[in-house]
Amino acid sequence: MTMKEIALIQFGLGGVGRAVVERVLAAQDELEWRYGIRFAYVALCDSQGAAIEQQGFTYGDLMRTVTAKAEGASLADLDIGYDHEGLADIVDVAGTSNALVIDVTASDDTVEALQLALSRGYGAVLANKKPLTQTYETFLSLLKGGRVRYEATVGSGVPVIATLQQALIAAHDPIHRIEGCFSGTLGYLTTGLQAGEAFSALVRQARASGYTEPDPRDDLGGMDVARKALILARTMGWPLELPQIQVEGLFPDTMNQGTVPEFMQKTVDLDELYRQRVATAAGRDQVLRYVATIDRGRAQVGLQEVPRRSPLGQLQGTDNLIAFHTDVYADAPLVLQGRGAGVHGTAAGVMADLVALSTSFLI
Amino acid sequence: MTMKEIALIQFGLGGVGRAVVERVLAAQDELEWRYGIRFAYVALCDSQGAAIEQQGFTYGDLMRTVTAKAEGASLADLDIGYDHEGLADIVDVAGTSNALVIDVTASDDTVEALQLALSRGYGAVLANKKPLTQTYETFLSLLKGGRVRYEATVGSGVPVIATLQQALIAAHDPIHRIEGCFSGTLGYLTTGLQAGEAFSALVRQARASGYTEPDPRDDLGGMDVARKALILARTMGWPLELPQIQVEGLFPDTMNQGTVPEFMQKTVDLDELYRQRVATAAGRDQVLRYVATIDRGRAQVGLQEVPRRSPLGQLQGTDNLIAFHTDVYADAPLVLQGRGAGVHGTAAGVMADLVALSTSFLI
Repeated sequence: MTMKEIALIQFGLGGVGRAVVERVLAAQDELEWRYGIRFAYVALCDSQGAAIEQQGFTYGDLMRTVTAKAEGASLADLDIGYDHEGLADIVDVAGTSNALVIDVTASDDTVEALQLALSRGYGAVLANKKPLTQTYETFLSLLKGGRVRYEATVGSGVPVIATLQQALIAAHDPIHRIEGCFSGTLGYLTTGLQAGEAFSALVRQARASGYTEPDPRDDLGGMDVARKALILARTMGWPLELPQIQVEGLFPDTMNQGTVPEFMQKTVDLDELYRQRVATAAGRDQVLRYVATIDRGRAQVGLQEVPRRSPLGQLQGTDNLIAFHTDVYADAPLVLQGRGAGVHGTAAGVMADLVALSTSFLI
Repeated sequence: MTMKEIALIQFGLGGVGRAVVERVLAAQDELEWRYGIRFAYVALCDSQGAAIEQQGFTYGDLMRTVTAKAEGASLADLDIGYDHEGLADIVDVAGTSNALVIDVTASDDTVEALQLALSRGYGAVLANKKPLTQTYETFLSLLKGGRVRYEATVGSGVPVIATLQQALIAAHDPIHRIEGCFSGTLGYLTTGLQAGEAFSALVRQARASGYTEPDPRDDLGGMDVARKALILARTMGWPLELPQIQVEGLFPDTMNQGTVPEFMQKTVDLDELYRQRVATAAGRDQVLRYVATIDRGRAQVGLQEVPRRSPLGQLQGTDNLIAFHTDVYADAPLVLQGRGAGVHGTAAGVMADLVALSTSFLI
């Protein structure tokens, strides 16, 4: 078996970025014997600049870099090849078209660099939802060559995108409806509500456990779930834009004003509302879930009553779930369920995509 | 986009074979614009011989052939290019290495032809479990080039094999245990037992509904599930042989003697046994499922008690379910669930594999 040498350029060195680097290093020997591929990191970029080593970083340099970053250093502080140009200028350091760009940032500003990389013949793997949820035109420009994969954007490592693209679309099985829970945070909340806990207490606990962003409104507003729904809809070929998605947040718009402590205090005012909604649902043998629905050309996300005994109703805690209703899966949907958050699942999703691209068009 | 022309040779023209031909024909336009591939059937084989058309059969000829077969004709009866050589002699009719062989028989005798096809540079798609469950050496000889796919052998169109290979193995996520229900027939039986129905009545109903083979012992004995467990274990790299799998059937060995009517009569003797096992399990908040477990180098299949609220315990009716316990999916498994039988799901699984192979190594 001839060995494929593939250069990696990574945008983002936060928790997920570190987990990806560590997973690639740990897998190196297995990747060689199983697939005949060898990855060499040539650039690591954070928001301030890039560490570059055209011959490929050594194991020691990579570990030193991700460890220092995890301890709060900037790439600029480290004694490694360093450049502070923009991301687009980094792309050409690969010096070969046998290269993959990994975007594990949460930035809107990587699109130009990704498009440049694709124009150079590279592939790209995204855990970053932002480039795929700008205009539909941008989505198409990234996807058209079939060299961008983005498994980790929805459901973390759960193979949601692979199933949609390969088991359903490629199998010519028409998809009638997709519904799912794509937020571990909101899963934790709705399961807690069902168990009788107060909304305000659950938000407080979720924030204290690190399940939410520092400002929990970022999760409770539903936009992250809306982006995932948009990615699924566009993967099915629907030319939707983000503002066309109907998003119902878990708090009224007025609570968007004010500081986080003020917001936290006001959540108590919602306790009774949610207690009643849970009780009303229970009276109909239903439970509340924060559901994304992609159906008849539209996508919506919000709190919904679902039958207690349905796949969504049986979902517990922070797990994600997706149900595909198709011609083949007409009586009962095709369901995937699993941990949909956490750096290791996300890194596993990125890794699966790296291998898939490496074993397809790269030489 | 340049169009890839790919020759198809199909072994098997039963219900699944017909569904595959019809799905390929229905997908033709979409396959061309979406992937730039065009399939041309050059040979269709049944157990008596082959219909051959080196330039590719027309839509009309294909539909006429599968319809006549469905109405009970043999290929030999039809006025189309016909050959009665063995399968291996058919392989070279493709006249190009851009070819895929589809094995949708239930025969042990296709291995030689499959190996010949691979030696010619073709790919192969199997819904037939037999070639993959002969010796481990044969399994390796088929799999070693990465040009054989077999999604439909386990869980029909549910992407069990793709998830195992791509989302877990390629992602370098160590798999600790796999458990699942891979028989719609036995799912129907165990759900019925749980609902209080008698074993003998359920077997009678399953047979009358066509859920079982004409001799229901073929399903109730567990060998079909054992083959699926073996395929999963071998996909993980475990060098197991079929006799090493511990198989617990649903009836005592003594009932293997005698005719089908005699067997059906004796199932009444088992009613009380299963009534008791269901009751005992229920007392522990457990239910009975026919489970395949792949764990620590071993595989076993048999009736098991599982917690009522576990994914397997919540499974209803004929759906299949697989749960992967891995490093990433440690707290709760990665679960796939869906219709695991029926010609359309199987044909969809075959189709997904045809597209995957066509978009990878074929030119």
